[in-house]
Amino acid sequence: MAENLTPFSHHIPLAVRERINGHKALVLWFTGLSGSGKSSIAGALESILVERYQAHTCFLDGDSLRSGLNRDLGFSDADRTENIRRVGEVARLMFEAGLLTLVAFISPFARDRERARALVPPGRFWEIYVDCPIEICQRRDPKQLYRRAGQGAIADFTGISSVYEPPLHPQLVLHSDQFGIVECAEQVLARMLENGVL
Amino acid sequence: MAENLTPFSHHIPLAVRERINGHKALVLWFTGLSGSGKSSIAGALESILVERYQAHTCFLDGDSLRSGLNRDLGFSDADRTENIRRVGEVARLMFEAGLLTLVAFISPFARDRERARALVPPGRFWEIYVDCPIEICQRRDPKQLYRRAGQGAIADFTGISSVYEPPLHPQLVLHSDQFGIVECAEQVLARMLENGVL
Repeated sequence: MAENLTPFSHHIPLAVRERINGHKALVLWFTGLSGSGKSSIAGALESILVERYQAHTCFLDGDSLRSGLNRDLGFSDADRTENIRRVGEVARLMFEAGLLTLVAFISPFARDRERARALVPPGRFWEIYVDCPIEICQRRDPKQLYRRAGQGAIADFTGISSVYEPPLHPQLVLHSDQFGIVECAEQVLARMLENGVL
Repeated sequence: MAENLTPFSHHIPLAVRERINGHKALVLWFTGLSGSGKSSIAGALESILVERYQAHTCFLDGDSLRSGLNRDLGFSDADRTENIRRVGEVARLMFEAGLLTLVAFISPFARDRERARALVPPGRFWEIYVDCPIEICQRRDPKQLYRRAGQGAIADFTGISSVYEPPLHPQLVLHSDQFGIVECAEQVLARMLENGVL
């Protein structure tokens, strides 16, 4: 380029990425209480999408982000909001890369989820509510968090000492107290097929 | 899943994603002064990768991240370090999704670049030094930043009032004062082909 720089302006249209991938890009945002089965269902769905459809996916959940990108954040209301803000921004980047972006976070505040939705075009963000009674989540308690919260060892624990605001108009509700993990994943898949995502 | 939750543990091996994509995953980290041509070269390379190879890519640069994920950060040394920390973490997530991840940031501090490198497996992070004399960058000044920095309007401007630490052992050096943007992009592509990335 020598003396003069002619900036190379480039933009890969999403439609080009989708044609290469053979499927649409979409953010699938799983929200629900701790122990409701969000990560397990999203994980099962990702396995099906990759193995059965050779799809291009990525998976974002608390375990992967809180140990990396968001490891400077705690669980106060302000830090939860910043946590979800960053997750939404990363989901947007993944979406723009053409991926089926599976996101599994408690994400208790409706306002934070709406901000994440607004980062991608209309219809490209599906809020999926993993609806499970807290009594059942507490009995499952896979990470022993309810037990520790009950002992006062965890401040601001969603459903116990911090609020969970259920989605008012989710794209999909999964009843993980009535269906198994793979059944719930297949319910999402069915909706994706109905909508021509795959 | 009813009462008992059997967490669905899933992990999509990178090799599976690479087989579906038809190419390896890699982080291509372009570093250099403002005006050296980092974003333009990375952008040209992305266009070639998508158009000629139908590759699966993503592109991270200052303009896209500072308006979103990193919009809470300024240009102090501490904020630059946090900026690059987050970029490195996002690049890791993109890499794990199997993408050819093109990153174009000044990223002036060697220590910050090394931290980003350490997030992906050995050999999967290529530091690409866009080497261009500052006098030429200043004459190009595509964003009028050198002019404003010279007037004292920008504190901590790399190369003027803040240090740039060149890579000591970059995978590749591009001389953007001697070659055009697309020529530089083709030099990176040639190296990718030599190494069996594509």
